[in-house]
Amino acid sequence: MKTTPKEAFRSHCAVNYGVEAFGDRWSLLIIRDIVFTGKKTYGQFLKSEEGIATNVLASRLAFLEEQGILSKKPNPDDRRKDFYALTEKGLDLIPILLNIVLWSAKHDSQSYVRPGSKLFDQLSQSPAQVSEEVKALLREGGCIFPAGNE
Amino acid sequence: MKTTPKEAFRSHCAVNYGVEAFGDRWSLLIIRDIVFTGKKTYGQFLKSEEGIATNVLASRLAFLEEQGILSKKPNPDDRRKDFYALTEKGLDLIPILLNIVLWSAKHDSQSYVRPGSKLFDQLSQSPAQVSEEVKALLREGGCIFPAGNE
Repeated sequence: MKTTPKEAFRSHCAVNYGVEAFGDRWSLLIIRDIVFTGKKTYGQFLKSEEGIATNVLASRLAFLEEQGILSKKPNPDDRRKDFYALTEKGLDLIPILLNIVLWSAKHDSQSYVRPGSKLFDQLSQSPAQVSEEVKALLREGGCIFPAGNE
Repeated sequence: MKTTPKEAFRSHCAVNYGVEAFGDRWSLLIIRDIVFTGKKTYGQFLKSEEGIATNVLASRLAFLEEQGILSKKPNPDDRRKDFYALTEKGLDLIPILLNIVLWSAKHDSQSYVRPGSKLFDQLSQSPAQVSEEVKALLREGGCIFPAGNE
C-alpha cells in the first residue's frame, strides 16, 4: 500500500477507501499519538511502545501527507523536528478512532482503557459528541492527555 | 499479523488492539461483505471486486475466527460452503465500519456512497442508532442490501 497512488485504489467502495487510506498496521497508531498525547515530530512517533521501524515511519508519514490526512510544517533546522498535524480530513478520523477504543475496551480483557473508566463511559454515552469535542481540542493545538507525549 | 497469537499483540493500547485484530488490508472487506450484502461463504467472499487471493482469504477467515469476530458453521459436504457469521464481538464492529463509510463518502470524490444519498444522510444524523438497527438486522440473518450478494 505504501506506494499506492490516489488513483490506484482497489475499489471506491467506502470501506475499501478507508482501509487503503489508513487501514494498515501503523497509520492509526501515528494518528492515535497525535490525538491522545499530542505528539508532533518524527522523533516522538518513533518512541511509541509498538516499536515502529524508522523506514516504516517515514513511509507512513509521507503516505498520510499524500492522502491529505496529515500536514507537515517543515523545520529548516532539523528534519526530525518537522511538525505533523491532522488536517480536517484527518480530524474526521476521530470518530473512527474513538469507536475502535470503545470496541477494544469492551473486548480486550487486557485493554489499557477499561469499561467503567471516565473515558469509556463518556464515549459509550455520546460518541458523536465526544468526537466533536476532541476535534475542537485538536484544532486549538491540544490533545486528550496533554502530559503523555514523552 | 496473520499468525499473531492473542497474547502477542504489540501493546494493549485500545487503538492497537483494534488495528491488530481487524486492521489489515482485507479483514474489514470480509466484514463489509457480510454486513452490506449478506455473504456467508468462502466462495462468495472470493468474488469481491478487490480480488483477494485464495490463501489470503483462508488466512483472514481463520484469524477472524480465532479472534472471536467470526463464527463458522461447518458444512460437512463442502468446505467452500461453510457458513461464516459475525459473533457479538464482530457485530460490535458495525459502528466502526459505518463511520469509515461516512468518512470515505465525505472525502473520496469517487466514493460509491455519496453525500446526499439516503444511507449517508441517515448515518450522518444518527450513526449510533443506525448501527444498532444494522446489528439487529444481522442478528436476524439479514444485511443492508439483501440483493447484492452475487
